[in-house]
Amino acid sequence: MALMGAVGRADWRHVLETTPHPRGLRADGFSADPFYKCLVAEVPAELACRGQTIVGYAMYFFTYTAWKGRALYLEDLYVMDECRGKGIGGEFLRRIAEIAIQNKCSSLQFVVLNENRPSIEFYIAKGADDMTKAEGWHLFRFEREQLEGLAGGKPPPEQLPLDITGAPGTPFPPISREKF
Amino acid sequence: MALMGAVGRADWRHVLETTPHPRGLRADGFSADPFYKCLVAEVPAELACRGQTIVGYAMYFFTYTAWKGRALYLEDLYVMDECRGKGIGGEFLRRIAEIAIQNKCSSLQFVVLNENRPSIEFYIAKGADDMTKAEGWHLFRFEREQLEGLAGGKPPPEQLPLDITGAPGTPFPPISREKF
Repeated sequence: MALMGAVGRADWRHVLETTPHPRGLRADGFSADPFYKCLVAEVPAELACRGQTIVGYAMYFFTYTAWKGRALYLEDLYVMDECRGKGIGGEFLRRIAEIAIQNKCSSLQFVVLNENRPSIEFYIAKGADDMTKAEGWHLFRFEREQLEGLAGGKPPPEQLPLDITGAPGTPFPPISREKF
Repeated sequence: MALMGAVGRADWRHVLETTPHPRGLRADGFSADPFYKCLVAEVPAELACRGQTIVGYAMYFFTYTAWKGRALYLEDLYVMDECRGKGIGGEFLRRIAEIAIQNKCSSLQFVVLNENRPSIEFYIAKGADDMTKAEGWHLFRFEREQLEGLAGGKPPPEQLPLDITGAPGTPFPPISREKF
């Protein structure tokens, strides 16, 4: 699949250490209720890079804030090295911005490693704000192992008797997806 | 609605300046294809806080990375002041961790303002890593006005002829939701 080929070619340093998982990408992106959406950039055959006409991709999904409603998150934006500097990244951003506006999103967010100066300069030039620098937002993460520890924890003695449920009307049971 | 009452009471400084929008919360969270999911914490009537038995909420949604697949994002975790220190936040985290594991998520992510020391100490004590401090991840944002500028932009002269479309099989047209 062209998308998974493009993902396999993404060559930012830390990314090379992780192997994309084709079965997961296929099951989670190409079902009736996908976890993500993706745009691909295709050039005419005569402009193919290393024999590929799919030369970039942009993976995104919708997010939400209680305060401003819908938002869009750009998870990945990748263009093959040989095709950079030719407006493809900017065209991806333009399309993503269109999608955000059409879907009433209040903002588009994404994260970038502070050492990735070329990407940061690109986004700043397009008008993005560095919210970590401007307001002090920090990204936190629990990895799988830490989640397993949390899930298995016991309530402390001082915990109030309480009931935690899905807010009325929200589908609470786990999402059933194709298994892989 | 109890959820919107709880959201209205969330009292972190910057949040007070923004008004939640009930119609949007209702349309986007309580439909067949919600933008977010939410847990609420309910205490027995005899332990009500300021007459409320719904004393906290946790808003979350599923996200995705090309490298590790499904992930979960915790957008908001709020407990009324009077009910803090009684294990409710920890129980929310435990349930969220369970949901993440049941849905094969590789991680749980969220952002916190660096000045919000009580929250940061809570999450670090539970085992979260500060990825901004540890690896240099910065959060970037385009606001609505900047998105409108991007969407209206013209391609530069050096742009390759190209076609940007949804990756085959992904639903490309804008999501149609109830209008509000």
